[in-house]
Amino acid sequence: MSGVVGIYSSDRNDVAQLIYYGLYALQHRGQISAGIAVNNNGFIDYHREAGLVHEVFPKERLQRLIGNIGLGHVRYAFNTDDHSLLNTLPLVAGYKRGALAITLDGTIVNSDSLRDSLEDSGVIFQSELDGEVIANLIARNSKVSIEEAVIKALDEISGSYALAMMTNDRLIVARDPFGIKPLCLGKLGNDYIVASESCAFDTVGADFIRDIEPGEILLINDEGLRTISKKLKKRNLCLFELVYFARPDSMLDGKSIYLSRIEAGRQLARESENDADIVIGAPDSGIVFAIGFAEESKIPYAEGIIKNRYVGRTFIQPSQELREQGVMIKLNPVKENIDGRRVILVDDSVVRGTTIKRTVQMLKKAGAKEVHIRIASPPVINTCHLGMDTPSKENLISANMSVEEIKQLIGADSLHFISIDGFIKSVNPSNGFCTGCFTGKYAIDPVNDK
Amino acid sequence: MSGVVGIYSSDRNDVAQLIYYGLYALQHRGQISAGIAVNNNGFIDYHREAGLVHEVFPKERLQRLIGNIGLGHVRYAFNTDDHSLLNTLPLVAGYKRGALAITLDGTIVNSDSLRDSLEDSGVIFQSELDGEVIANLIARNSKVSIEEAVIKALDEISGSYALAMMTNDRLIVARDPFGIKPLCLGKLGNDYIVASESCAFDTVGADFIRDIEPGEILLINDEGLRTISKKLKKRNLCLFELVYFARPDSMLDGKSIYLSRIEAGRQLARESENDADIVIGAPDSGIVFAIGFAEESKIPYAEGIIKNRYVGRTFIQPSQELREQGVMIKLNPVKENIDGRRVILVDDSVVRGTTIKRTVQMLKKAGAKEVHIRIASPPVINTCHLGMDTPSKENLISANMSVEEIKQLIGADSLHFISIDGFIKSVNPSNGFCTGCFTGKYAIDPVNDK
Amino acid sequence: MSGVVGIYSSDRNDVAQLIYYGLYALQHRGQISAGIAVNNNGFIDYHREAGLVHEVFPKERLQRLIGNIGLGHVRYAFNTDDHSLLNTLPLVAGYKRGALAITLDGTIVNSDSLRDSLEDSGVIFQSELDGEVIANLIARNSKVSIEEAVIKALDEISGSYALAMMTNDRLIVARDPFGIKPLCLGKLGNDYIVASESCAFDTVGADFIRDIEPGEILLINDEGLRTISKKLKKRNLCLFELVYFARPDSMLDGKSIYLSRIEAGRQLARESENDADIVIGAPDSGIVFAIGFAEESKIPYAEGIIKNRYVGRTFIQPSQELREQGVMIKLNPVKENIDGRRVILVDDSVVRGTTIKRTVQMLKKAGAKEVHIRIASPPVINTCHLGMDTPSKENLISANMSVEEIKQLIGADSLHFISIDGFIKSVNPSNGFCTGCFTGKYAIDPVNDK
Amino acid sequence: MSGVVGIYSSDRNDVAQLIYYGLYALQHRGQISAGIAVNNNGFIDYHREAGLVHEVFPKERLQRLIGNIGLGHVRYAFNTDDHSLLNTLPLVAGYKRGALAITLDGTIVNSDSLRDSLEDSGVIFQSELDGEVIANLIARNSKVSIEEAVIKALDEISGSYALAMMTNDRLIVARDPFGIKPLCLGKLGNDYIVASESCAFDTVGADFIRDIEPGEILLINDEGLRTISKKLKKRNLCLFELVYFARPDSMLDGKSIYLSRIEAGRQLARESENDADIVIGAPDSGIVFAIGFAEESKIPYAEGIIKNRYVGRTFIQPSQELREQGVMIKLNPVKENIDGRRVILVDDSVVRGTTIKRTVQMLKKAGAKEVHIRIASPPVINTCHLGMDTPSKENLISANMSVEEIKQLIGADSLHFISIDGFIKSVNPSNGFCTGCFTGKYAIDPVNDK
Repeated sequence: MSGVVGIYSSDRNDVAQLIYYGLYALQHRGQISAGIAVNNNGFIDYHREAGLVHEVFPKERLQRLIGNIGLGHVRYAFNTDDHSLLNTLPLVAGYKRGALAITLDGTIVNSDSLRDSLEDSGVIFQSELDGEVIANLIARNSKVSIEEAVIKALDEISGSYALAMMTNDRLIVARDPFGIKPLCLGKLGNDYIVASESCAFDTVGADFIRDIEPGEILLINDEGLRTISKKLKKRNLCLFELVYFARPDSMLDGKSIYLSRIEAGRQLARESENDADIVIGAPDSGIVFAIGFAEESKIPYAEGIIKNRYVGRTFIQPSQELREQGVMIKLNPVKENIDGRRVILVDDSVVRGTTIKRTVQMLKKAGAKEVHIRIASPPVINTCHLGMDTPSKENLISANMSVEEIKQLIGADSLHFISIDGFIKSVNPSNGFCTGCFTGKYAIDPVNDK
Repeated sequence: MSGVVGIYSSDRNDVAQLIYYGLYALQHRGQISAGIAVNNNGFIDYHREAGLVHEVFPKERLQRLIGNIGLGHVRYAFNTDDHSLLNTLPLVAGYKRGALAITLDGTIVNSDSLRDSLEDSGVIFQSELDGEVIANLIARNSKVSIEEAVIKALDEISGSYALAMMTNDRLIVARDPFGIKPLCLGKLGNDYIVASESCAFDTVGADFIRDIEPGEILLINDEGLRTISKKLKKRNLCLFELVYFARPDSMLDGKSIYLSRIEAGRQLARESENDADIVIGAPDSGIVFAIGFAEESKIPYAEGIIKNRYVGRTFIQPSQELREQGVMIKLNPVKENIDGRRVILVDDSVVRGTTIKRTVQMLKKAGAKEVHIRIASPPVINTCHLGMDTPSKENLISANMSVEEIKQLIGADSLHFISIDGFIKSVNPSNGFCTGCFTGKYAIDPVNDK
Repeated sequence: MSGVVGIYSSDRNDVAQLIYYGLYALQHRGQISAGIAVNNNGFIDYHREAGLVHEVFPKERLQRLIGNIGLGHVRYAFNTDDHSLLNTLPLVAGYKRGALAITLDGTIVNSDSLRDSLEDSGVIFQSELDGEVIANLIARNSKVSIEEAVIKALDEISGSYALAMMTNDRLIVARDPFGIKPLCLGKLGNDYIVASESCAFDTVGADFIRDIEPGEILLINDEGLRTISKKLKKRNLCLFELVYFARPDSMLDGKSIYLSRIEAGRQLARESENDADIVIGAPDSGIVFAIGFAEESKIPYAEGIIKNRYVGRTFIQPSQELREQGVMIKLNPVKENIDGRRVILVDDSVVRGTTIKRTVQMLKKAGAKEVHIRIASPPVINTCHLGMDTPSKENLISANMSVEEIKQLIGADSLHFISIDGFIKSVNPSNGFCTGCFTGKYAIDPVNDK
Repeated sequence: MSGVVGIYSSDRNDVAQLIYYGLYALQHRGQISAGIAVNNNGFIDYHREAGLVHEVFPKERLQRLIGNIGLGHVRYAFNTDDHSLLNTLPLVAGYKRGALAITLDGTIVNSDSLRDSLEDSGVIFQSELDGEVIANLIARNSKVSIEEAVIKALDEISGSYALAMMTNDRLIVARDPFGIKPLCLGKLGNDYIVASESCAFDTVGADFIRDIEPGEILLINDEGLRTISKKLKKRNLCLFELVYFARPDSMLDGKSIYLSRIEAGRQLARESENDADIVIGAPDSGIVFAIGFAEESKIPYAEGIIKNRYVGRTFIQPSQELREQGVMIKLNPVKENIDGRRVILVDDSVVRGTTIKRTVQMLKKAGAKEVHIRIASPPVINTCHLGMDTPSKENLISANMSVEEIKQLIGADSLHFISIDGFIKSVNPSNGFCTGCFTGKYAIDPVNDK
């Protein structure tokens, strides 16, 4: 997963600073690397590096990035091999018609076969980035305009993507025909901004205009906005955006994430039998679901677990020995809310099952009479090939154990997952979703062309 | 303000690691500097430096600190002059009877006159630390045992303090006779641990035993625990610990901070007229009060403001110009909860008034029909000379404006502060409190002996 | 200018460490960036970054580079723009036949037209590196073997180069047909090593075998050495290697740099009238010339200027104001050798003229009765398009002033440059040299195809 | 060993910058830590830290140090324990009469007994610095003026020292009564500067005035210079300053180091039989001796060994295995000067014997027919308790082996040390020297009062 920002301004040349704050708002979408590219007098200047936004861009570096058009990117997770530096975005390249920069959130499903055929024609690849494939597809069509070249290139690729590209005088953004990845459009004075989530607009003081449509390719230049292609296949927004990824203060495809999660929390309460003294949420992503759950179930809401917010990159994780002695660094129960109580703990999802197990133990140790787990998403039974960075199937607890088995393994007194239909109904019934990781039915099937 | 940890173990020599995790749990009490000292074969080894705990102690450095007795410290705020390095704790010194290390949370009120009289006898001071004064007072009594010397030294000082000292074979801890600063005792297997707040015990897997009593001096050595002095004057716990400083999952003087704040939130609701659609808390410290407030007022609780957690030391603050354009980095409203609503915002305190003003503006911009501010502490009208690091009086908005004036300045539709009696009644009526910053009546009066 | 190292080992997998020490020996050839690439189980692992060798490769990073074939590179000077990161070597890419890494010292003269024609066929460029052009030329010939592809690619390029390339199972090295850039072959046990200068062999304990011949392409794989092409045009070793670049303990094209410089120093003495008390060298590069000069002229040699060796990257250069007050950081005269004496100062070359001017002032201030400058290379009157990183013509003092004018400008009592014939005769008369910067006659003429 | 700088200016407030360049010139006297203190509006501001001068003082930090009086310090070697931070200088303290800063090069012989007696009176020590002892001795005399207190304090101490102290309005400098440590006085416009070596004056553009006399205490304030005490015992300048420590471009006690070493090189030649083809020096400290040796012996001088200057703090030392394979990082022979020749290698001293052994091996491997070692100082047979940081006696090769045994151990064809009388006669016969490490006769005997 990644976060994408793009800005086109007609008159300011400090868009890099706005991108910086926009990326900061999207930092939850990627903590591995950050990058910004801007047009600057005929070439594209950029910097990209491993690290958080504020680490990658000290003041002097940010101030050297001058231009009125810009792209930004934060990356969630990638292999951390030493040569991963080239695996950061934005990718910046020169081709026949000039300079080109590309940044995307998403995964190209047929990238292997595209690479193969490009290599047949003599292309070299310097990274594992899908963006490098797209740049080559565009460069192969250098006889036509950049807009036509982008249309042709995107016709060849299959996958999930929220894409932002720039040349020296225009911004071109696109969303995959299934709308798997979110991308929305905002306005800041006379300038336009696109971002993975609308919370980035709030941060820079821009107004939300609309979502980029699935399959839409939008050109932004000195003549304003122009949709140059529109090929919706079927709305298939990634359901995990609503479960976990997106910030609660964002709007995706017309729906507030906060309200969606409140509704899902309510639905979860309706779907299970709940007899308890208190409802708590697993910080941070379970909190909103828990508030909704408490409202619906009429069981009092409380903060039951405090999260220590100071963990940094160089924090020393406790050794196994210290863990066994009880050292427990990130989460701490509010004992007075737990001791002697029957507790409902609401969490957003169960992936590997290790965190929830440790949390149940913690609550029991704090004196909980009963611990009932309520999960605001269905069991995750499949990995994702469309950019969600889920672990492989053998590491997904729900792919390998029944709900009852998991309940016993984690030591909970009850365990309930929301139903897929219940979830969709509560969050945004009029939209379509990719539910592959829960159901096996993906927007796009995996390709095995290796 | 500061956080203090001390450990005495009979058999393990890795107490530095436990202190590390204990300090991490107390990081909210001080982010300016961190330090750890341990006894090691007859001398005291230590490291202290500006930075967060995980920044100051990389793995190799922590592992070099070997010993079975140790002290740790995090410091909240101090002048950041370049030479402040010596103003970090623990202070480690040699004196006639061997090595001595001292760490404290608190402020010695009569330190100027003590320094004067010590300098008269030829003493040099290498820092501005009160700990250096105490060390000299102890060293002046090197004819008697360390315990007697500590008792004599503490007889000479007046102020707030939670104090932990060590030599090569013992730990001595003390709390001021008014109990202004918190300090509590825990047990980890056969070993003893003291800390400013009990949440540090949870982090290292220790059990809470009891608070150190106001005026108590406690010796911990290979014979176990022994209270060597007990001179309670009058319980005067700093009220601001309950308002803001202490973590909600801590116990102070026998009372849960979380429950105290829930009760104060309820009391606040009872004390004001509340006609609104929604109750929200100012993150993070207003949240628990808001939950209590919502329960009592029967107005629904919601998360109305999302806090971006990724701000790091090198984050570039937006320029004034960007701020005016709407760049707003740390807090973002959940518009769907605010727009068109009458909102009650609960916060823990108002000090300078700048944050609450900006928050009201943000909520109004997000569409709030009305914004009612409820503050879970009385107006702060005095600065603190007992270690709370409050700004000087001219910067305290409530010292300079009436509630009505503040209401208008910040643009709120109503503004209500909890009453001092209401607050105390709700949090811990059986305890005594220093309410100086709210009432002008301090546990100890300031000394002007310069 | 750059330094290049390549190693092929049949049995060790720590060649990265040997490359590290080899690059360290070549650090004088480039302090801007460093990089190492090694084959590792079917792909090529690498790291490259701005900085000195020891800064770019901390121990853990070096130890992660595992493989039996490797390339290394240090770069002298390049534009220091923020995006220069991609302008470091080795370049590593995948193409139809697998992985390929390239590193080179040199400049491709016709790179603009090659880029143009490659872009016509749809190629994108992610850097300004000539190595990227060469990689694309090779990839375009993916139907034939890598050896044939390299031969074809090098047929298309014109320029100076010492080139080392690797795939997963072979090392291919090449030197331009004029031998402008140096490259030599060594043996370390059963393993082969190539390097820009033989001093790298000494550092890793390898034995010098021979120079790579101008126009030679040499394959090193598990069958040993094989010259796969040999197209000598005319020997044209860069004369500046002997003047300044190469280390005195290296051999280039069969001749010791130290002895060459001693001889040039002698010749310089023969070519000028010398009436003085003492001969000193400008540290460090004038010293060997000065020793030769002193021997021939029978005027005593002394150290007249001490160089402070501690200047680091973050050293604060004195302000203009402090300079005018006399702050002089790097060089200091040994007054006792200068005061009241007639001094001959021997330096290797005069480029901009600023250093020599400041040195003359320093010697006069130290009491020199006369200062006679003797320069061991002819006046530099042209910039270099073949990789020497000379400043542009308007900044070359000898391109803009006569010897007499320079003498007066710098305040010397006499100034003499060695003759071009005298220099060549003394250093290596049997070799041919590119003397472009001194004479305007380059091995290869510049191409203006933009 | 350490380097000391002090400046008193009547009108400039940027003396920290001059101290920075002065310390840089003295960097060879200490690479472990650096510190600067300046008076600033009634208190003394300072920074000190482990590292080279340019590492410890980035631009912003240096510019924050404002004042017209200042001290600087670089430290050679100290135990590198984690808490050594307090063992850096200048020490800054407050005492009865105000602020005081102290920096020194030297060792107090009776510091243990002084610490004891100070501790008896209740003093605590926060470091192992002799400067802390001196500060306490001064503070004990706070009834009298600072000048009188300094005189009294120095009467109590015995040892080697070059001492610079400052208060808010004056600089006081002192040299031990034996003149063991060097300290000299310079003038920069109307301002005064003191430094361990005169080369620091050249760097900042100051003029050398004179040496501080052994036993002299000199006050510098707004009334100019005033010698407030003068108690010469006997001139005993540390001989190792002339052998190794001092920079060749410095003057110590009226004599040029460069010329002293040339003379010692000549004397060394006279004292031994020399039949060889070439004379080379061990870089860097053997070079000047070698030039003198070559002149006297009429055997040609050459550079025989090239030193790689790029070793930095993080450089990875080759493993034992790589060393055995021939990896040799710092020194490299110029083979053409060595191969087949009978070589005389001149070095400044032999301490442990490891370096000289490796150098002989290197020269033999490079083809030297014979290697004759000539050492420009007598055998070091005793460690030093007066601040020279020599290894302990069991590590001194000459304390444990005869010259003949050493010759065989290191594999030299001959080995000759200069005589002590010959050395002194050649360097500065009119001065007196401490020759303790060569003869056992120290200026001051060690004290065993523990």
